[in-house]
Amino acid sequence: MRYAVIMAGGAGTRLWPMSRTGKPKQLLRFIPDEAGGQARSLLQIAAQRLRGLVAPENIYVCTGAAYAHQVLADLPLLPAAQLLGEPMGRDTANAVGFSAAILHKRDPDALFAVLTADHIIEPLDTFQALMNKGFDAVEKHPETLVTFGITPTAPATGFGYVQRGAEIEDCPGVFRVRSFKEKPDEETARQYLATGTYAWNSGMFVWKAATILEQLRLHLPAAHDGLMKIAAAWGTPRQEEVLHALYPTLPKVSIDVAVMEKAPSVATIAMPVKWLDVGSWPAFAQTLHADPFGNRTNGPAVHMGSTNVLSVTEDPSHLVATINCDGLIIIHTPGATLVCPAADAEKIKALVAQVETTQGKSFI
Amino acid sequence: MRYAVIMAGGAGTRLWPMSRTGKPKQLLRFIPDEAGGQARSLLQIAAQRLRGLVAPENIYVCTGAAYAHQVLADLPLLPAAQLLGEPMGRDTANAVGFSAAILHKRDPDALFAVLTADHIIEPLDTFQALMNKGFDAVEKHPETLVTFGITPTAPATGFGYVQRGAEIEDCPGVFRVRSFKEKPDEETARQYLATGTYAWNSGMFVWKAATILEQLRLHLPAAHDGLMKIAAAWGTPRQEEVLHALYPTLPKVSIDVAVMEKAPSVATIAMPVKWLDVGSWPAFAQTLHADPFGNRTNGPAVHMGSTNVLSVTEDPSHLVATINCDGLIIIHTPGATLVCPAADAEKIKALVAQVETTQGKSFI
Repeated sequence: MRYAVIMAGGAGTRLWPMSRTGKPKQLLRFIPDEAGGQARSLLQIAAQRLRGLVAPENIYVCTGAAYAHQVLADLPLLPAAQLLGEPMGRDTANAVGFSAAILHKRDPDALFAVLTADHIIEPLDTFQALMNKGFDAVEKHPETLVTFGITPTAPATGFGYVQRGAEIEDCPGVFRVRSFKEKPDEETARQYLATGTYAWNSGMFVWKAATILEQLRLHLPAAHDGLMKIAAAWGTPRQEEVLHALYPTLPKVSIDVAVMEKAPSVATIAMPVKWLDVGSWPAFAQTLHADPFGNRTNGPAVHMGSTNVLSVTEDPSHLVATINCDGLIIIHTPGATLVCPAADAEKIKALVAQVETTQGKSFI
Repeated sequence: MRYAVIMAGGAGTRLWPMSRTGKPKQLLRFIPDEAGGQARSLLQIAAQRLRGLVAPENIYVCTGAAYAHQVLADLPLLPAAQLLGEPMGRDTANAVGFSAAILHKRDPDALFAVLTADHIIEPLDTFQALMNKGFDAVEKHPETLVTFGITPTAPATGFGYVQRGAEIEDCPGVFRVRSFKEKPDEETARQYLATGTYAWNSGMFVWKAATILEQLRLHLPAAHDGLMKIAAAWGTPRQEEVLHALYPTLPKVSIDVAVMEKAPSVATIAMPVKWLDVGSWPAFAQTLHADPFGNRTNGPAVHMGSTNVLSVTEDPSHLVATINCDGLIIIHTPGATLVCPAADAEKIKALVAQVETTQGKSFI
């Protein structure tokens, strides 16, 4: 049986002031609908992306327990039993392992895809076809961990890379992983791009629950032990007690470092898709159409003489108006307004820290 | 008996989006209180400026009838009978004449000061002492119209000027007016400043109601005729009917053009005061203290790396945050946000016109 777990544990400080403590980016309904419908959240888009690929009763969401109420409101058809609430973040090895342990308890033969809730991925049919290819490969080779790469379109230095080796004979388009690479410098990234055998490491996987658990047992036994105890208590009266007692003790590490770089059978599939991490305002801007002067807006706006302005409002009845501005990001929320040059968008994290220091927690 | 009429008929498009149709600048409670109290409106400040100068029962406000409710809310102790509501603006000759006709009906010996609701004037004691000097002069010379000048501190080209002639013998500091001058070019303004005999034309006056009415009768008889009929009906059941029938027919002209440049006995008093027309965002900025980097704000704000930013919020719990901005005006209201360089503040009028064209009337 095929399952999917959407990882929705992010925070999103770089999208302040729209993302706030307790209101992470994947739950912001701020992605415009091309067909003119209401804006949706990244989580809603991630869930809809699975329509026709995985049955609704097999779709899980792994998120912070604090967001459970909001996630259930965001996905009204998600049964509460399919929401995996982490008491706190313990990095991806445990989010993945937690999901694997619960799924394995439900279905020892479960295969599952790990998906992110941070991205826009297009076109849909390419994504679904290659996800299916991953499931097919794991059905044929249940010991194999499949990681998805994104076919690079530029020598990006902001991603890790996965280098492919030989194609697996009975799985066309599925390749052995030769190596994982840290974020490269630009020269190295250019070489990666030129070879055609490197892809961006996407954080999406397909594997058998039993296999990833076995690899965790071998390479991260402390986590495996805790997670199996949590799974044993799952669905019993002791569920919450055990979860809260053990989760904080799990070693905090990424699944890449804990398992992927050590496991004996790792394969990769490259997705030639548009893959947009909507984790910053300049990235969000890419989801909006530009006017002839490069201005983009998600609501009522008048940009007189302005160029390359991004204006975003959380309130569809709020107007943003500018005169002769260039390259500015202007974000309006009922509680706070942000204005900064797009070139300084990476400084928003530092700004939020300064807001907390000088204004207290009410604005963050 | 001494009276005062505060002219509060303005609009204030240059203070958009805080000033809106139906919410003119003189009623915006946006002037910070130096002593740390709540912000006040320009009208409240104009009224308070009369404390000790004119008795409350002799203070009138002349405004658009549409603003009557707001004016009475802004000045809770103002009797409704002291609110003179113009059905529409017919320029200053009629606002002044309307006031004069009503006051003259109440008290044929009334002297009154005409005051603006657009300015911050400091220091208060200089203002009051010179207003009293004006009243004294008119008591001695009831045929004289007194106009107040502001002692210029720079060769300003944005004001009309009044040139003084000889001092009136029994009224030290009160001078005959030699001429009124239109807004000069910069070279001319420098010459005016150098002579020491020119002052900025302030729009403030003191005169006897009977005298200004007589001058209107001579120089603008159509207005005088209509205004006397309105005054005759004032306080009778026909008040509103006559007001609405005749006011629209009054010839639209300023009191300077209609009377001051023609009357036989016009005197002037120069006020050495700070005189700030809070009619634009850069002018409003002057009411706020600057931080060491030139940023000014009227509410919660974090300006990280920014310089010379003016941030204004109508909502004292709303935060404005910026990164590396320079010279920007940022105005937040619940309905609209404005961002523009201070150097382009004069274009706000054009922006508002564009907002009306493209977005309809709801934002203006």
